Amino acid sequence: MSPLEFFRLKTREEVLALYPRFPAVGVEEVELPAAVGRVLAQAIAAPEDVPAFLRASMDGYGVAARDTFGASVGAPQYLQVKGDVPMGQAPDRALGPGEALRVPTGAMLPPGADAVVMVEYTAEHEDGTLEVRRPVAPGENVLAPGEDVGRGQALFLAGTRLRPQEIGLIAALGITRLTTYRKPRVAIISTGDEVIPLDQKPAPGQVRDSNAYLALAQVAAWGGVPLLGGIIPDDYPALKDALAAAAAEADLVLISGGSSVGARDLTLAAIRDLPGAAILVHGVAIRPGKPTILASLGEAAPKPLLGLPGHPASAAVVMEVLGRPLLERVSGLQAKASWGSTVTASLSRNLAGASGREDYVRVRLRLEAGTLWADPVLGPSGLLSPLVKSDGLVMIPLGVEGLFKGEAVTVRLFGS
Amino acid sequence: MSPLEFFRLKTREEVLALYPRFPAVGVEEVELPAAVGRVLAQAIAAPEDVPAFLRASMDGYGVAARDTFGASVGAPQYLQVKGDVPMGQAPDRALGPGEALRVPTGAMLPPGADAVVMVEYTAEHEDGTLEVRRPVAPGENVLAPGEDVGRGQALFLAGTRLRPQEIGLIAALGITRLTTYRKPRVAIISTGDEVIPLDQKPAPGQVRDSNAYLALAQVAAWGGVPLLGGIIPDDYPALKDALAAAAAEADLVLISGGSSVGARDLTLAAIRDLPGAAILVHGVAIRPGKPTILASLGEAAPKPLLGLPGHPASAAVVMEVLGRPLLERVSGLQAKASWGSTVTASLSRNLAGASGREDYVRVRLRLEAGTLWADPVLGPSGLLSPLVKSDGLVMIPLGVEGLFKGEAVTVRLFGS
Repeated sequence: MSPLEFFRLKTREEVLALYPRFPAVGVEEVELPAAVGRVLAQAIAAPEDVPAFLRASMDGYGVAARDTFGASVGAPQYLQVKGDVPMGQAPDRALGPGEALRVPTGAMLPPGADAVVMVEYTAEHEDGTLEVRRPVAPGENVLAPGEDVGRGQALFLAGTRLRPQEIGLIAALGITRLTTYRKPRVAIISTGDEVIPLDQKPAPGQVRDSNAYLALAQVAAWGGVPLLGGIIPDDYPALKDALAAAAAEADLVLISGGSSVGARDLTLAAIRDLPGAAILVHGVAIRPGKPTILASLGEAAPKPLLGLPGHPASAAVVMEVLGRPLLERVSGLQAKASWGSTVTASLSRNLAGASGREDYVRVRLRLEAGTLWADPVLGPSGLLSPLVKSDGLVMIPLGVEGLFKGEAVTVRLFGS
Repeated sequence: MSPLEFFRLKTREEVLALYPRFPAVGVEEVELPAAVGRVLAQAIAAPEDVPAFLRASMDGYGVAARDTFGASVGAPQYLQVKGDVPMGQAPDRALGPGEALRVPTGAMLPPGADAVVMVEYTAEHEDGTLEVRRPVAPGENVLAPGEDVGRGQALFLAGTRLRPQEIGLIAALGITRLTTYRKPRVAIISTGDEVIPLDQKPAPGQVRDSNAYLALAQVAAWGGVPLLGGIIPDDYPALKDALAAAAAEADLVLISGGSSVGARDLTLAAIRDLPGAAILVHGVAIRPGKPTILASLGEAAPKPLLGLPGHPASAAVVMEVLGRPLLERVSGLQAKASWGSTVTASLSRNLAGASGREDYVRVRLRLEAGTLWADPVLGPSGLLSPLVKSDGLVMIPLGVEGLFKGEAVTVRLFGS
């Protein structure tokens, strides 16, 4: 009996629930431009107010709002223009009652001003008299000090992924260096006596190491640093040595295993016999992807190892569904719910589910007469080309017999 | 009268229709691992069959399917096991009538075999007799030569973005170097007498150059190479020199302009007076983002210049809606429709549209009792914090008065 059969299949949720035991990678300080897409490893509070001063958000005249009350086209209020506020400078005077200063968008308002009258609602006469044809409320057309962010305000917690807008706000605060998590290093080991490097011509029976490059591309697209660990023959000591070296060097180990029971058993034995190793999962209730392994390597700071199925489509699905959340976990990401990359589409044919497993079906999207259709792309999981024709995955949940033609489905898009 | 007013506002579609005049950037050869996410600049046809040989996709016995016809648990067919096919090697014999060879998943089938009987449906006796309890059809549990990709088959056209699955298939074909488009170099110029570098403490009236970093982060996240062009004062010769230098160095020029009419007019004059420059768009019917400029620089191989509005939220929206497609255009991408990153959500309050403009409203997503809600995040476009609180944008189309509470809306997600 194969050791496979001693393990009960775990559900996807059960596998994901094991991830918190793996600690995040270490941290490093980076310059702000290099922090795009990185995960913050420090909390950030605002060291100062943004904006730092009362700022015009329209071209016009800085005024005291009360001086404009009751103004209309028929009965304007008249103010006296006392000059300009130049961009980037403090006004050289305060505003007295009945006075106004010309302000361009972005300029600082003088003491005594609390609003901007837009130039469209005024006429300035040659003697400096300003006709104001519409009243403004206090605070109108200006940004108050601290209106964007107030000094001391807690902004971001450690574990936040830095999108462009986070970078923009951090720049506005004058923060030029940040402590972020390192990019996780991900070792990718290929196994199999039949597997050869890409640049070799396969002899009969041999295949190129394409699964490693598929995983490499996924890791790179998702913010990790892939490290190719080479091709290891189906040999226990060689596998064990390669795994030990990978665990020493990387934060996460991927092993792209053989598809045969014999090759999988060998891999399992090599993993189990590593120092401090524990096999946590051997078999997941998803299709494709059942023969997936999750192990913990080492005791003080356990590193995760994910054993991928040998069929390329199975490996790709397991990486999307289980590998990406694992990479995010070791990246330090404290996910708020991810709205991910999904679209809603209408299923173009009936689909039967996999009894007892979550079923991931590749689909291609097609827009026709205003309806977005999800066309299932069928084909054995040993093939790459159906994956290439697909835009994403539709999941048939555990316990659901199937999905019907015309049903609205959520398509999880493949990232680029 | 400001030169602004001589221009009719263009719709988003009219602006996008101008992009084909801009040529793609040049090409370069890269190693396969570096090609992830890049745009292919060559067509790829398969140089060989994948798989290259008849390959087992299950553990079992290679057989001639006709030898199993009629087999059942009650009346098995009996074959003679003649040995194993080792992984990665050609079988050392062909199959005669009534014969079988043990094959692990992934192994090559011998001449004479056309199917694999799964090990579950067999019993092998000590004398080498194989009891087959279920028939297989020709081609069952095997992958045929060329079933994934046939030799000579056209696979990818130039202009394809290389996702992980494309990388995997290209690896399977033994292609290790690819001609891709260069990553576009994007110059980012900041203007304004009030703008200072991040590491300086603003004096009253001054602000830090945060818009440049917001644009830098967007360019980096979308696959471009951002080049910070520095902060240029509101001065015609200085602006003209900086623009000429940026146009010489970069493939796409972004200028983050002032928000005042005076600053915008100065920028417009400096652009117009560059050699071979043409202002194509000055004002777009979107909100926020109206004061957007599109220009063409140079005649033989015109380079695009996008002039961004000064308010940060306006600049961010213009980059999403107009800047990203422009970057993709110069990247060489021949887009099939992008299914982009969108989700469907229910609007949590009524939203009024902007008369005469497409209106982009920031929203935050919230999952409550199984419904995904889009909560509008309001606030002046001069602020960054509403953008930080948002997950994406909802668009109210031109000519639509507004959207209603409870309506299903498409949320265009901000990228990371």
